[in-house]
Amino acid sequence: MTARPVIALDAMGGDSGPAAVIAGAELARERYPKLLFRFYGDETAIRAELARAPRVGAEAVVVHTATQVLGTDKPSQVIRRGRGTSMGLAIEAVKAGEAQALVSAGNTGALMSMAYLALRTMEGINRPALAALLPTLKNDSVVLDLGANVECDAENLIQFAVMGAAFARVVLGVERPRVALLNIGEEELKGTEELKEAAMLLRAVDLPMRFEGFVEGDKIGQGNVDVIVTDGFSGNIALKTAEGTGKLVTGLLAEAFKTSWLTRLGYLLSRGALRALRAHLDPNAHNGAVLLGLNGIVVKSHGGASVRGIANAIGVAHDLVVADVARKISDDLANFHAHRPAAVDLTSAK
Amino acid sequence: MTARPVIALDAMGGDSGPAAVIAGAELARERYPKLLFRFYGDETAIRAELARAPRVGAEAVVVHTATQVLGTDKPSQVIRRGRGTSMGLAIEAVKAGEAQALVSAGNTGALMSMAYLALRTMEGINRPALAALLPTLKNDSVVLDLGANVECDAENLIQFAVMGAAFARVVLGVERPRVALLNIGEEELKGTEELKEAAMLLRAVDLPMRFEGFVEGDKIGQGNVDVIVTDGFSGNIALKTAEGTGKLVTGLLAEAFKTSWLTRLGYLLSRGALRALRAHLDPNAHNGAVLLGLNGIVVKSHGGASVRGIANAIGVAHDLVVADVARKISDDLANFHAHRPAAVDLTSAK
Repeated sequence: MTARPVIALDAMGGDSGPAAVIAGAELARERYPKLLFRFYGDETAIRAELARAPRVGAEAVVVHTATQVLGTDKPSQVIRRGRGTSMGLAIEAVKAGEAQALVSAGNTGALMSMAYLALRTMEGINRPALAALLPTLKNDSVVLDLGANVECDAENLIQFAVMGAAFARVVLGVERPRVALLNIGEEELKGTEELKEAAMLLRAVDLPMRFEGFVEGDKIGQGNVDVIVTDGFSGNIALKTAEGTGKLVTGLLAEAFKTSWLTRLGYLLSRGALRALRAHLDPNAHNGAVLLGLNGIVVKSHGGASVRGIANAIGVAHDLVVADVARKISDDLANFHAHRPAAVDLTSAK
Repeated sequence: MTARPVIALDAMGGDSGPAAVIAGAELARERYPKLLFRFYGDETAIRAELARAPRVGAEAVVVHTATQVLGTDKPSQVIRRGRGTSMGLAIEAVKAGEAQALVSAGNTGALMSMAYLALRTMEGINRPALAALLPTLKNDSVVLDLGANVECDAENLIQFAVMGAAFARVVLGVERPRVALLNIGEEELKGTEELKEAAMLLRAVDLPMRFEGFVEGDKIGQGNVDVIVTDGFSGNIALKTAEGTGKLVTGLLAEAFKTSWLTRLGYLLSRGALRALRAHLDPNAHNGAVLLGLNGIVVKSHGGASVRGIANAIGVAHDLVVADVARKISDDLANFHAHRPAAVDLTSAK
C-alpha cells in the first residue's frame, strides 16, 4: 500500500475514447485527491484532453502507444498481438508495480485473457471471477462470476464466495455480508453436485460472512443477500437477462406514456420521479466490474460508460487498493482451509 | 385425435383450489365449446363449484379422491405416495387414454416427476423439457428447458429445439420459427462444448425452423427470436431473473409515483396506460408451461393463476391436442436423424 494509489488507465478503451476516460479521472480526483494516474494510448489525444483536466493533468504520466484492442478482437488474437496495446501496457504497469490497479472500458474478453496471463491468480485462487454490483429494491448486491469461467467446481465457487464477500465488505461497507449460491431451488437437494458440495463446505466453516444457502433468480432483485455466487455461464445469463428485462419494462413504459395526451401529461408530471427510477437502474451508477483473484486489481468499465460511470469505476479501483482487498481474500482463504472438514461426504447429508 | 378433446384437470392444485380451476374451465369452454373435462379431487367441493359452471357442469366427469399433492411435498415423497392424489389420477387418465392432456396448478417438481414416470418420453426424446412463453417487446417467445433437466448434452438441446419449434408453430402460429441457443456470447466459439455441438448440428440440417445461432440473455426481452433453447439450469435462472427484474422495476415505479402529489396526479392520468403495461407483463396472460416430449400433453399452470390464467393454460392444452403436436415433433426428429451429418468433428469448425 502506497500513500498515493496509482491507477493505470487504458485511455483508448470504450466508445468515447480518451475524452470520457480523462474527464472521468478528473471527476474521480475530486473525490480522491490523492489518486495518481498513468494513461496509456495515443499521446496527442491524451494530452489534448489533459489540457482540459487541470487536477489530473499536473501529475499525470502518459505512455504513448499507437495500437489498441478493438471491440471486435477475439481473445486469441489479442493474446498474440495485444502486449503493445493501451490495454496491454496498462496491465503491464500493474504487473511491474508501477500502478496498483488498472481500469479499462475496452473489450471484456480481451481484458480477462490478457490480465489473467500477465498477472496470474493469487495464491489459493484457481481462477479469477468477474464481479459487479446489481441494483435491487434495497442496497446493491455483488454478483460473481459474470462470465470469466464457463464451468466451475465446488472449490471455484467457494473461492468466489470468499472473494465476493471481501469485495462486498469494501464496496458495500457490510461487515458480515450475507452470501448465497444461485440455484434453481432453495432446498438443499436442488441443483448440481458442485453447488451441493460448495454449500456444505460454506456451511461448515466460519468465515467473515453469513452463508444463507441457495437463492433463486427471482430473489436477485430483492436485495436480501449481499453476495450472489454462481458459475460464469449462469451469472452471465442472469446479468444479461436482468439488463434485458429492465430495458423491456422501461421500453414498454415509454410506449405506455405515449398512448394519449392524458398519459403524456401524466408523464410530464411524473418526470422527476421517473428520472429517479432511471438513476436507480442506471448502469453508470453501478459501473466497474472487477476481475477478482489476480495479482493486481483489474476493473472493467462498461464500454458505453459516461464520465460519471468512468469515475465510479476508478472509485471502485481506489477503494479496493486502499482496503487491500487481496490481503483480506488471502486471510479468509487461509482460515477456510485451516478449518474445512477433512473429507466431504455428500451422501451422508442426503 | 378425437372430435371432442378431453382435458383432465387436477382440481386441487394451485392456491385457489377447485373454485379457480372450475371457473377457469368454464371460461375456456366459452372459447372452445367442444372441450370436455374430467375433474380429479374432492367431489363435494368440485360438485359445489360445477353447480355454478353450467357449460362445463352438464358434461363433466368427476373422479373423487381425498388426497392431494402439497406444495411442500418433495418429488421423492410424491413418487412413493402420489398415485392416488388428484394430480396422480389426472396423469393416469392421460396414460389410460381417457384424456388427451392434463392441466395442473400444483407442485411443479411433483408434476414433472410423476408425469415422467407414468407417461414416459416419446420415441426419439431422451428427456422432457419444460417450455413456457415469455413476454417481449414484440410477440411472446418460447423458452425451454425451464428446469426439468439440470444438465443437458447436445442431443438434448437439439431435441428441445425441435420440440420448442413445434410448440411455437402451434401456440404462436409462426410457420418457420426463429430458434436460437442461449449462450454467453454470439460468436461461434463461445460457451460449452454441448452448445457448440448442438449449434453445428442445427446449422447442418434443414428443419422447419430458422436456426439463428446463439443469443445472449439480454436479447430474450427483445423478441427477435421465437424459440430460445437452453439447459434447465440456465433456463430456470433466466426465467426467474426476468420475473424478479420485472418486479424490481415495477416496484421501483410504484414507489416513484408516490414521491409527491404531482407524481400521484401523474400516476392517475397515466393509469390506463400503466394498466396496459401490467397486462402485457401479467403472468396470467402467458400462463401454461408445457412439459414437452412425454406420451401425453402435460400443462403446468402457475400456482397463483387467476381464473383467466387457468383458462389460458387449458387453451394451451387444447391447441396442442388439436394440432397433434406430438406427431409434428416425431416427424421433425425423424427428418433430423435422416439428414444429420454422419460424424461431428468440432475441431474442423474452429
